[in-house]
Amino acid sequence: MKFELNKAIPVLEKTPLVIRTLLRDLPLEWILENEGKDTWSPFDVIGHLIHGEKTDWMVRTELILEDGTPKTFQPFDRFAQFENSKDKNLEDLFDEFEELRKNNLTSLKSKNLTSKDLDRIGVHPELGEVTLAQLLSAWVVHDLGHIAQISRVMAKQYKSEVGPWPKYLTILNHIPKE
Amino acid sequence: MKFELNKAIPVLEKTPLVIRTLLRDLPLEWILENEGKDTWSPFDVIGHLIHGEKTDWMVRTELILEDGTPKTFQPFDRFAQFENSKDKNLEDLFDEFEELRKNNLTSLKSKNLTSKDLDRIGVHPELGEVTLAQLLSAWVVHDLGHIAQISRVMAKQYKSEVGPWPKYLTILNHIPKE
Repeated sequence: MKFELNKAIPVLEKTPLVIRTLLRDLPLEWILENEGKDTWSPFDVIGHLIHGEKTDWMVRTELILEDGTPKTFQPFDRFAQFENSKDKNLEDLFDEFEELRKNNLTSLKSKNLTSKDLDRIGVHPELGEVTLAQLLSAWVVHDLGHIAQISRVMAKQYKSEVGPWPKYLTILNHIPKE
Repeated sequence: MKFELNKAIPVLEKTPLVIRTLLRDLPLEWILENEGKDTWSPFDVIGHLIHGEKTDWMVRTELILEDGTPKTFQPFDRFAQFENSKDKNLEDLFDEFEELRKNNLTSLKSKNLTSKDLDRIGVHPELGEVTLAQLLSAWVVHDLGHIAQISRVMAKQYKSEVGPWPKYLTILNHIPKE
């Protein structure tokens, strides 16, 4: 599947509602437990997505599209959510993510990007040169990866409850690397 | 997290709407592509979940709870969806899954299961003896595993579009085993 804006945006538009639907009104253990040392709970993941809306995807898009600026992205802070989400409740985080995402996609659409724009280059501090199309594709994959992560972290809470089933429920055998 | 019915049922109740929210109104490539030979598309996964509602979780629950019946489960057909979903559209599958799940959970709740019931035993044709609590825990994990799978299969469609990002977007490096 080739990256096309009109196929990517519908996925990006859904993510806040998908995560809200998956998590809202659940007993808090499903939200607050992680999958082991140095891993993230669903609550942490939402904070991470919020920080991405504020500092990553559209900020980098703007940088690529502006004329004459240095094109190296600021490194992304993967731990910002631990401070930023403190004292917030889940509904606040859902609302904040939804609002930020909505505004970012409004901004993205308003740019009427051409295929020439999508070929423009930025410099990732660790990965090197990337095109705008690659950045926007990564945004989609990043969303989907974190939806999968939230589901997996929830599933892991029952790892010791399923008896012999981990043989077939292979998600339980996943070793987190992110 | 210990299995408790009142914490498991809210997760099971959500799954049809989560999957509908994730997939509805998307360009069909997101729905119909898989992640390689002998793997499933999101469309295939919904058919598989439907077949589970019809022949697996509650059927096995009933078998465990009935007195005097042989307790060995029928093997589950992992390929039934390829025939059953043929000629159906996505909205039909969403509706069918939602309806079946709703009825199954109504039935589950009506049983007012005691902790003694949850300790009752059935025999999985390959895994051997399992308790009802393990079966119901596996139902939850199975749902969450397939939500994660759907997200992953969608993410994989952009594997060649993200340039150097698979290094960080580790979901793209997952090798399907299910």
